[in-house]
Amino acid sequence: MKELNYLDVLGYATDKMSHAGVFLTVPGEPANTMTIGWGWIGYCWKKPVFVAAVRPQRHTYELIKKAGCFTVSVPTGNELKAELIMAGTKSGRDINKFEGHGITAVPAQQVDAPIVKECGLHFECRTVMNGFMMGDTMDQEIKDRCYPQNDLHELFFGEIVACYATDEEFAQKYAR
Amino acid sequence: MKELNYLDVLGYATDKMSHAGVFLTVPGEPANTMTIGWGWIGYCWKKPVFVAAVRPQRHTYELIKKAGCFTVSVPTGNELKAELIMAGTKSGRDINKFEGHGITAVPAQQVDAPIVKECGLHFECRTVMNGFMMGDTMDQEIKDRCYPQNDLHELFFGEIVACYATDEEFAQKYAR
Repeated sequence: MKELNYLDVLGYATDKMSHAGVFLTVPGEPANTMTIGWGWIGYCWKKPVFVAAVRPQRHTYELIKKAGCFTVSVPTGNELKAELIMAGTKSGRDINKFEGHGITAVPAQQVDAPIVKECGLHFECRTVMNGFMMGDTMDQEIKDRCYPQNDLHELFFGEIVACYATDEEFAQKYAR
Repeated sequence: MKELNYLDVLGYATDKMSHAGVFLTVPGEPANTMTIGWGWIGYCWKKPVFVAAVRPQRHTYELIKKAGCFTVSVPTGNELKAELIMAGTKSGRDINKFEGHGITAVPAQQVDAPIVKECGLHFECRTVMNGFMMGDTMDQEIKDRCYPQNDLHELFFGEIVACYATDEEFAQKYAR
């Protein structure tokens, strides 16, 4: 495990997130993970902050609200394509995504949410603010295209309390 | 002027923003700019999106609400330290920051907001959603430290409609 500066990997993580997806993982009985393709990594309140978006109908939604924390695990060496599709199309209400589906939940360092062992880059986050997207001011084209049923995402602003690589090769490339 | 992929410069821009500040510029009579140190660059609604935070007492606030667009200009070769301090401590209500203060407003490519000519990297944004931070769910430590007067930031989500360098050397380093 090699600690990284989030600034050095935010380009990599956002690229992966937007093109292939990454795992958003929350604690529970059992823990659950879902694939996300949208989000922000930035800096606010003198803290690095990951903003994740979760729709209320997702199984993850109740879990993340209850937990107050989440992790984001990013594939590095291993692309995990099938696993990202599985985590993005199946619901944790119906299956345990961490049993028999090629991904493993292992404990994180700083938060209760586990990380996905098969990924090489991880962000551990403590929720410091959350609330629904602002439908009143949203661009009409976005509203029509993304929210025809008005199921706006809730935004979860998570202080990044740990950022590290478990992929040795990746760590060597991105460590300072 | 060299177009860039926002993914290739978001680490650079967030680093600069969080450590030294960048210019958030809005149109008006005259146009105004302010120094920001907080914000997010990410991907949502199948668009690259810059999230800027502006407090309601700022002169920029009314201008950005009215304009529906903004630009973010990032110093590259030139550090512009004095100019960032000026833009972060003076108010556009009292002075024209673009006259006699070392920075120049020049037209952007895609939006009405100008860019800061002396900077080498620019993001042009069209506001697609805005709304205040969520005070009800905000972490108490953050609330006490950042908002003792409850003057929560409003978040402006701007679709990045253009991202480019006007600094030739910077462009060569970050272009694909």
